[in-house]
Amino acid sequence: MQRRPLLGAAAAAAVANAATTGQAAAQAAQTPSAAAPREPVTLAAWGSFHVGGRLVPLSGRPVREVVLTPGGAPARIDPNGDYMVGAMYAQYMIPAPLRGAAPLLMWHGGGLTGVSWETTPDGREGWQHFFLRRGWATYVSDAMERGRAGWAMFPDLIPGEPSFLPVANPWERFRIGDGPGSWARGTTMPGVLFPTDRESYLNFTKQVVPRFLTTDAMILEAYLALLDRVGPSVVMVHSQAGQFGWRAAQERPHLVRALVAVEPAATGLAEKAAALKDIPQLVVYGDYIERDARWPTLRRNGMAFVERVRAAGGTVEVLDLPERGIRGNSHMIMMDRNSDQVAGLVQDWLAAKGLWR
Amino acid sequence: MQRRPLLGAAAAAAVANAATTGQAAAQAAQTPSAAAPREPVTLAAWGSFHVGGRLVPLSGRPVREVVLTPGGAPARIDPNGDYMVGAMYAQYMIPAPLRGAAPLLMWHGGGLTGVSWETTPDGREGWQHFFLRRGWATYVSDAMERGRAGWAMFPDLIPGEPSFLPVANPWERFRIGDGPGSWARGTTMPGVLFPTDRESYLNFTKQVVPRFLTTDAMILEAYLALLDRVGPSVVMVHSQAGQFGWRAAQERPHLVRALVAVEPAATGLAEKAAALKDIPQLVVYGDYIERDARWPTLRRNGMAFVERVRAAGGTVEVLDLPERGIRGNSHMIMMDRNSDQVAGLVQDWLAAKGLWR
Repeated sequence: MQRRPLLGAAAAAAVANAATTGQAAAQAAQTPSAAAPREPVTLAAWGSFHVGGRLVPLSGRPVREVVLTPGGAPARIDPNGDYMVGAMYAQYMIPAPLRGAAPLLMWHGGGLTGVSWETTPDGREGWQHFFLRRGWATYVSDAMERGRAGWAMFPDLIPGEPSFLPVANPWERFRIGDGPGSWARGTTMPGVLFPTDRESYLNFTKQVVPRFLTTDAMILEAYLALLDRVGPSVVMVHSQAGQFGWRAAQERPHLVRALVAVEPAATGLAEKAAALKDIPQLVVYGDYIERDARWPTLRRNGMAFVERVRAAGGTVEVLDLPERGIRGNSHMIMMDRNSDQVAGLVQDWLAAKGLWR
Repeated sequence: MQRRPLLGAAAAAAVANAATTGQAAAQAAQTPSAAAPREPVTLAAWGSFHVGGRLVPLSGRPVREVVLTPGGAPARIDPNGDYMVGAMYAQYMIPAPLRGAAPLLMWHGGGLTGVSWETTPDGREGWQHFFLRRGWATYVSDAMERGRAGWAMFPDLIPGEPSFLPVANPWERFRIGDGPGSWARGTTMPGVLFPTDRESYLNFTKQVVPRFLTTDAMILEAYLALLDRVGPSVVMVHSQAGQFGWRAAQERPHLVRALVAVEPAATGLAEKAAALKDIPQLVVYGDYIERDARWPTLRRNGMAFVERVRAAGGTVEVLDLPERGIRGNSHMIMMDRNSDQVAGLVQDWLAAKGLWR
């Protein structure tokens, strides 16, 4: 085990980030990041949209009169009628020049949103930055039921109810701390690269959102609508989204040019493995898996699925970071201090597949 | 009243958007917007962060074993412990060159998220685009309890419970349709500029999120944390955020260089009006107010507050669009078909206040 460092990484970077002049100084003053300034990028376009969803009726509910704002006029809210349920949100940034052969869709894990791919909790550039800077059109999305996708009345319109995570839970479950009780002890996996200073970790907990356990089918449906709208894409998934990436590729093999699964916690359907045979796939695992209570099972499931795809004639490469001599990655690889190093390996793989020019 | 048009605006724009070649064609192919291509922009930096929030303990709850993903290993979720509650999310884009004298913070209305300021529901560029293109550092945020800010267990950690809006509600309450029953009738305010084709309006309903009525103090606290972090800013607010903009300016007058209140549904504290006397303020109202059940009261409240600020020596300008001969604006002015025209008036006002060079 290892104690948390006393000085926040963001604070340390702020100390390091000193002299700028003129326009650069003005820009630095209006930028909240403590990280060192980087090269500018040019965007040909950027924006956002919602996709998927359907109208579902509710009836037989009492009408309410509510005052929405202090001193406001009462508003009559009739809760009966059609609700929009099941849509998701995506935000795109299209760089110029473009070097990726297809848009890069970045799908987050459970209890999280697209924020996973943005600035890291200690203020460094995230994987969205990394791939945009290399000329990929990035689409960072919030899956149905969370973030800017929004959620609906439960259990009426979304089955079940959400789980809420206290701050100790991701610390102990995402292989940051060394197992049960490690948040209270303040201990980490030895040499873990997640930014474990208190400020950074609490920043991370601010992006954790409630998680329904009963929405997989609705989430997948929205992802299919996203693929149908954007067209042929490279799909990058994390954790819970392992199943959505593989399942979506099984439903729309012609729309997935490649699939990158970062620490997938679940897989596609074994009986449809052959649908994936023409899609290059990369699976990435971090460190400490054998020390965790659940991850040996999750990786075993993942590898069994990989073998099914291979047996069906598919090509799946597995990037086991510790086997490559890269130690210290938690479950949140895109936030670990070597996030750019691992992104570089993914980028090299995509380039080797002919998807980058 | 007026019937909805049959052809969606996005579909019409797609027809108009034809020939592109080479790199431009590749970029267009990877961009989902049907809108015509525009000039590229250069970003010096971009990213996101969460701010505010505090740890709140919960105890005495039973531990649960849950299976998070199909075939996964059961996870033990102990719901006891500290929860992160009350944080908010902000995403920034810093253009180069920079022409705004301070960052522009864009605060959305009730039941909505920062998406309000992004691409319009019919696929045009939104106000975030407009101001970024003119050299403003933009900060688009999701207030505490919605969007990427996330929410927490209620009523345990957030008081009360949320309201959910059926699709008819914003149509009838945001002065798009002509009052109660207009969604069912399919009728609109005469000449309304909100994109009322069915596809665009349903796109808009996908960005509506559940709304708590009991969180004003927590929301304000997070906005103050945002101002404290970003520093002196121009604050632009919509609807419910009228109260947060004015209240935040009353608490941090030295951090608000100007305040633009678009259709404010609530105000600051009358007894603290003097705190606003050195902050240039612009209040914008759209059309059809006198035809609505609630908006005459809301505008009367707003104007009474404006008079208090003026009586305390402050400068508040009121931009009543119909008085200027601009008819057809709904409550969602930043999405109406003349959104760029109104943004231009706001931009001119900011420039006249010396906040743009």
